[in-house]
Amino acid sequence: MGTISTASEPAWLDKNENPHDAAPAFKEELRQRLPELVFNRYPDPENRRLRAALADDTGFTEENIIVGNGGDEILQMLFTAFSGPGETVLTLKPCFSQYDALCRIHGVRRKWVSLEPRESDIHLPEAKLLDSLSASSPALTLLDSPNNPTGKTLSDEMIEKVLRLSGGVVVADEAYAEFSGKSILDRFRGGILPENLVVLRTFSKAWGLAGLRVGYAISSQKIRERLDRVKPPFNVNVFSQEAALLVLRYRKWMERRVASISYTRDRFVEDVNRIPGWKAYPSEGNFVLVRGNQKTQTVVQGAAMQGLNLKDPGPVFPVSGQSEGWIRVSVGREEEMGKLLAFLRSFS
Amino acid sequence: MGTISTASEPAWLDKNENPHDAAPAFKEELRQRLPELVFNRYPDPENRRLRAALADDTGFTEENIIVGNGGDEILQMLFTAFSGPGETVLTLKPCFSQYDALCRIHGVRRKWVSLEPRESDIHLPEAKLLDSLSASSPALTLLDSPNNPTGKTLSDEMIEKVLRLSGGVVVADEAYAEFSGKSILDRFRGGILPENLVVLRTFSKAWGLAGLRVGYAISSQKIRERLDRVKPPFNVNVFSQEAALLVLRYRKWMERRVASISYTRDRFVEDVNRIPGWKAYPSEGNFVLVRGNQKTQTVVQGAAMQGLNLKDPGPVFPVSGQSEGWIRVSVGREEEMGKLLAFLRSFS
Repeated sequence: MGTISTASEPAWLDKNENPHDAAPAFKEELRQRLPELVFNRYPDPENRRLRAALADDTGFTEENIIVGNGGDEILQMLFTAFSGPGETVLTLKPCFSQYDALCRIHGVRRKWVSLEPRESDIHLPEAKLLDSLSASSPALTLLDSPNNPTGKTLSDEMIEKVLRLSGGVVVADEAYAEFSGKSILDRFRGGILPENLVVLRTFSKAWGLAGLRVGYAISSQKIRERLDRVKPPFNVNVFSQEAALLVLRYRKWMERRVASISYTRDRFVEDVNRIPGWKAYPSEGNFVLVRGNQKTQTVVQGAAMQGLNLKDPGPVFPVSGQSEGWIRVSVGREEEMGKLLAFLRSFS
Repeated sequence: MGTISTASEPAWLDKNENPHDAAPAFKEELRQRLPELVFNRYPDPENRRLRAALADDTGFTEENIIVGNGGDEILQMLFTAFSGPGETVLTLKPCFSQYDALCRIHGVRRKWVSLEPRESDIHLPEAKLLDSLSASSPALTLLDSPNNPTGKTLSDEMIEKVLRLSGGVVVADEAYAEFSGKSILDRFRGGILPENLVVLRTFSKAWGLAGLRVGYAISSQKIRERLDRVKPPFNVNVFSQEAALLVLRYRKWMERRVASISYTRDRFVEDVNRIPGWKAYPSEGNFVLVRGNQKTQTVVQGAAMQGLNLKDPGPVFPVSGQSEGWIRVSVGREEEMGKLLAFLRSFS
């Protein structure tokens, strides 16, 4: 490992962030608008301008849209509005780590359905998911698609089966949907949204605005009104609202970045799979689940010493006995992935 | 009323905002920093730079400070961390309207101690507060001081008695403390904070940054750690953190604005009390509780037609039978208060 030099600026491959900062033209436009932004007044509690822009952007109506201080806040609202002590929340396992944190905070019981690693793909056992749904009657079902950290996307058909079977609210967490190019929303555009569906989206990933904290949910009007009742009155600040409004005009820039990140990701997966002892699963997010013949801690700590920050995803597939050796790699810049590949090769 | 002309820009005297936008030099400095702010990375989950600056500013340590997406978010964290269904939250009545909303959202029982209007002041019945505290063993006691909407400040002695008697967490909500010039924190600076005290502060009022959503709490390290466990990981965006950090260097500007608003407030109280049929109570906030011989709705609607937005504070003193006729007036610019006085005179 001695030949790999430590860069002065560490590579942050641990939080599934966009490795590219917002477009300079966008930041400049925002800078020019700053003097007009009024700081001493509270933001519009209904976030109307941003919701109108999102309605235009998504093809749904403002009545279907709620905006949050990041997707995190909307998840919190969902737990507050739809679950409580003694109730059950159903998730996949593995899944976005915040689901578990919110279950603990809100004192709800968590049930999960384990994904299963196969030779070349991650398998979602559909029958088990549907059985678990019937057996546990969850108040909330949280399906991250693409799933974090596996990068696996759920099929529309499966989500629709869950929607039909569930007596509770079903959340399709599409934080990474721009990378997969798929959304359950496509099934319902121009029509009526199922009453128990919530689709979660964010400006933190493909749009590259993680630092500004803007997420939104698309749902039936009925669910949106329930969420509205638990929403803190002035939840999204004026600057971030302005930024989100403005960045929507930079869709081409976002799409080019997504294409480039996806290309880097797919090449990284291929390259990892050429290293003896290492395995990477195909992903539809901006991250890749990797397994090596080393303990996770050894890899994560060793990488950190090279200035490469990776994520320990915890026990990923405990049911199948494959709980160790996993790392989650956020797709960074080409040169960062090159450095990481060199590091992984140093183990083999 | 026909002689009062409607201004093109309505006066917002309904949300206790600072009527003056942030200092132009501050906004310009912030604008110059914008290109350096990184949007694609999540904010520091521990808000370390801002907490360090607040530690310097307040004389406490970073271990005593937690930052929120407005004081609203910290209130929400307090409810999540320290109360739950079946438990009791004790407040004054009247009080900040959000306390009631949070009690409903979190399914807790609300008890209150009613303030009592006297001839020239608002009275807080200390014995009743202490009795209620013993009788109801509240998980949380929320004391807004200055109290909203009365403008009444609680004495340090009374807050200390509450702290000694309470087995739960006691929140001194000092959102308006810069206007009163008093803080329970002064009792503990340089010493040890009581383990069950939380003091809530905000950049939304005196500092004029309501639109950016930054509040903070000062407490024992033990409480801060409990709040940390329920804090959404990335709760304050990078821009607002930078703005709050920077605005602390504009303390002189803030203090001049506070002095000017307090002067306008005190003159407004005197002027209202010279109008037959109207009464205004002395206030230590940036708002004034006013009572007239008209129904609240009549006054609020009539004022709105003149471009003067006032707040209907709801039934303020239901116990004393004086629940009608109240309005809460946020202290605006001199000319706005002049217009409002002319409007109030038109009723007599």
